[in-house]
Order: sequence, then structure tokens, then C-alpha cells
Amino acid sequence: MITIVAKHTVRPENIERFKALALQMVGPTRKEPGCHLYVLHQGVKDPCVLTFVEDWEDQASLDAHGKTSHFTTIVPQFAALLAREPEIDFYHLVE
Amino acid sequence: MITIVAKHTVRPENIERFKALALQMVGPTRKEPGCHLYVLHQGVKDPCVLTFVEDWEDQASLDAHGKTSHFTTIVPQFAALLAREPEIDFYHLVE
Repeated sequence: MITIVAKHTVRPENIERFKALALQMVGPTRKEPGCHLYVLHQGVKDPCVLTFVEDWEDQASLDAHGKTSHFTTIVPQFAALLAREPEIDFYHLVE
Repeated sequence: MITIVAKHTVRPENIERFKALALQMVGPTRKEPGCHLYVLHQGVKDPCVLTFVEDWEDQASLDAHGKTSHFTTIVPQFAALLAREPEIDFYHLVE
């Protein structure tokens, strides 16, 4: 299992646009083989922070995710909305 | 639902000590009322990064968690093992 915590800090005026795009990712991504969890969260203290938490079966399913049409059309649109570089952390499960 | 991503960067010599302490948190915390998820992850690129992902039913269950004997005895021991301040992010579920 590979877990990803993908933290995006958007500019305030882009919060709703980012969320609308991100929500377009959720439905098709959850249907992908090997996707065990794909959830979008918004910061309590800072609503400009929008973070995906993702669980993937293995590297192959994650690689396939990066080649889907929803990924290649939607994710590149995130960059213009951000206030800074995203923080994408990859994890192994300990327990 | 409240989600917490609690990212700890430990000094390399403290990885195993941190994991041992963290694992002592997992069992009793998962039995707490309102705890829907409590998982420990380790960074793929940087094994010094140890991150809890937690889902709590509400603020009341999270407040109660902070008063448990395992929390008050174990969590204070984390500080001496860290290389920098932990990053504790609180989130609402979007989708």
C-alpha cells in the first residue's frame, strides 16, 4: 500500500475553483483499480489548504492513475491556482 | 468528521524509538469512542518522516483523546526525538 498526502495551498480567490476541479477527480479516481481511498480535505484553520489523502494498492495502480484522462486533463490546471508549490508526501504503512 | 495529518520529522537515530512509542498509541487509540481511523505512516523518500493520519467523529472525541492516559504519557515523549517542530494539520472532509 502506498499512501499519498498531497497538500495544496491555493490563493484565496481560487478556493472554489480548486475545489470544483478537485471534485471532478474524486468520482473517476475512486473507480480506478487499486484505489482504496481518495478523499479531499480542507484546512480548519486555513481554508486555502486543500489536501488529498490517497491509498493505492501498489506502484502500478498509482502509475496508471497518472495516465488517466481525468488526471492528465485536471491536475495540470491546479498549478495556476496555487499560492506555493504543492507538498506531495509518499508513505508506506507502518501500522 | 475531523481529520488530522500529524507529520513528525525525527532525527535518524530516533526512528526506531519513535516508531516503538507511536505503535503503543495505535491499539488503545483505535478503541476510543469516535476514532474512525488512526494509522501510522513512514516516508518513502525520507524514513525520518513519521505521520499519523487520524479521523475523529467530532471535537468531543478528539478532546477526550487528548486526556487519555496513553496520550498524556506517550505523546510528550515524542518531542525529544524530533528534528524539528511537528506539523499538525486539522481538516474538514470536503468529499
